[in-house]
Amino acid sequence: MSRPPTSRDLARLAGVSQATVSRVLTNNPKVNAETRARVLQVLKDANYTPNALARAMKTGRTDTIGVFMTRVTSPFHAELLDEIGRVLSSMGLHMILWNIEHDPEETIAAVVQQRLVDGFLLTSATYDSTLHTMAVTSGTPTVLLHRGIDGLDCDQVVGDNWQGAYDAGQYLVDAGHTDIGLVTLTHTGNTSRDRDLGFRAALADAGVKIKPSNVVSVGVPHADGHAAAEKLLSRKKPPTAIYTVTDLLAFGILDGARAVGARVPDDVWVIGFDNTDMAAWEAFDLTTVEQPVHAIVEAGVDLLRDRITNPDRPTQVVTLPCPLVIRGSTANRR
Amino acid sequence: MSRPPTSRDLARLAGVSQATVSRVLTNNPKVNAETRARVLQVLKDANYTPNALARAMKTGRTDTIGVFMTRVTSPFHAELLDEIGRVLSSMGLHMILWNIEHDPEETIAAVVQQRLVDGFLLTSATYDSTLHTMAVTSGTPTVLLHRGIDGLDCDQVVGDNWQGAYDAGQYLVDAGHTDIGLVTLTHTGNTSRDRDLGFRAALADAGVKIKPSNVVSVGVPHADGHAAAEKLLSRKKPPTAIYTVTDLLAFGILDGARAVGARVPDDVWVIGFDNTDMAAWEAFDLTTVEQPVHAIVEAGVDLLRDRITNPDRPTQVVTLPCPLVIRGSTANRR
Repeated sequence: MSRPPTSRDLARLAGVSQATVSRVLTNNPKVNAETRARVLQVLKDANYTPNALARAMKTGRTDTIGVFMTRVTSPFHAELLDEIGRVLSSMGLHMILWNIEHDPEETIAAVVQQRLVDGFLLTSATYDSTLHTMAVTSGTPTVLLHRGIDGLDCDQVVGDNWQGAYDAGQYLVDAGHTDIGLVTLTHTGNTSRDRDLGFRAALADAGVKIKPSNVVSVGVPHADGHAAAEKLLSRKKPPTAIYTVTDLLAFGILDGARAVGARVPDDVWVIGFDNTDMAAWEAFDLTTVEQPVHAIVEAGVDLLRDRITNPDRPTQVVTLPCPLVIRGSTANRR
Repeated sequence: MSRPPTSRDLARLAGVSQATVSRVLTNNPKVNAETRARVLQVLKDANYTPNALARAMKTGRTDTIGVFMTRVTSPFHAELLDEIGRVLSSMGLHMILWNIEHDPEETIAAVVQQRLVDGFLLTSATYDSTLHTMAVTSGTPTVLLHRGIDGLDCDQVVGDNWQGAYDAGQYLVDAGHTDIGLVTLTHTGNTSRDRDLGFRAALADAGVKIKPSNVVSVGVPHADGHAAAEKLLSRKKPPTAIYTVTDLLAFGILDGARAVGARVPDDVWVIGFDNTDMAAWEAFDLTTVEQPVHAIVEAGVDLLRDRITNPDRPTQVVTLPCPLVIRGSTANRR
């Protein structure tokens, strides 16, 4: 095993002091041209890459972005992470990934203060987390992606969840559904809240009431969607359509429908939210509202890089449209 | 926006020089007890966390592990990543994630030389990548996880893919199948190779021949499994069972079977490999060979930490069992 050469090794090879090597690496004009040329040749021959830490100490930049995410095993989050990695890589930036499910908040508080990264991308902001406040007040450039916080003075890029949900509701009402199930999450963030409220607004505008017994509040896993569908579809007069706030829950609902022998879309229509790649699979063939992952990430990383170079510009909230994508889990193709 | 205090600010507050603050932070005995107490009180009042870079320069440790991964949107890789994050977090270690699909090899070569991390976890080693060689020859502690390289002098933790595949083949033969389809990947790594060769060995040992027309070589996506199933199951006399080397391909095969109207398991049995969480979903209910993700990651991180403190101990290859998990996509529950 051969370790990469240190600046000490290189100084010996070039016949100069370590300080001189250091001056060459930082383009210090004190080094004469001949010595500089000799040192650069030695560096080149040795394939030398300056220690990232030493460079970061000098430039104050780490070329690293900290990403806070939760549940990377959720299909939507995995796609979001993949896209963030792709965009950061294309800009020569590294990504430190913190999974806020595993990392206690004290750890994160320490991280925020340590200036380990040039900026933060927060993808999982919730009302009760203090993560976004810590990040913003630390002065480290921060952008909220996908999940926003209303009124927070911070750059944010979010989908128009409310309008997407409204469109899904209107589509069901237009197709003649009046007995509609809503499988919803406890509102811990703006995505689940807007995906719930927008849907309810569409039904209210059309004069369609949601029976309280048709609303089921669940947790995030597939199994919770499954259980909700079993509950709703085992009734004597089950709803003719079920809308839910994530694709993962919709997959659970489709599986719950299978379990009780309800046919989709003949007996019940199902609509999700996210338009993950899996939504197009034959097993699900899910009508769903699209989160524009690619556009959200591109806009978010652009805002973050801009914030790093212009720390004092006013903050921006970018809202991107979430179109409804019709597939076989609803019968009214348009 | 308030930036965290620098050592300069703190020095002013404590009425000492920056060098003294620095000496207190590094436990230098030159500082007298009274001054030390005053500086520590100022640090405490200011909630000061030393700059991670400055600390890393002093200790030579970054408390950060570099993880190389590919295709984080694949359900198995997402579970592997989640588990790696969980285990590293529990040890107070950060994770830098590089997606080797997005990062060109030159970038990675630079990263390896930059000593940005204390060690590497490589999860996607392939025969033709030079990544593992670069990592190992750089002298940075490195462990290959999940994918191994035969004969490489490097710590490795892998599942016993060959035996798992053998067990799947034996199970089909024991159930009386003689016309068996094999949907396989081009062998770019030891996992796909052993999952193919182990399966073929079981059939050969039982005297069951695989027709060349029953072997389909595909790429990694769901759509490729779908196309392979359509091809195999549209024949006049289709195989009665299909085995494939990943769950993702098996999900595609199940969807392809749906597309051509073949019932699982009545018309065709399907077996995958990985035992991802999704394999248990009603939509798939997949018999599959389990990759012991949790055990692989725990053993791999243990080896890496041990390698960091004992760089010269002999390398180890740990192989963990991959048990067959029987579900509804095969009819012969045992």
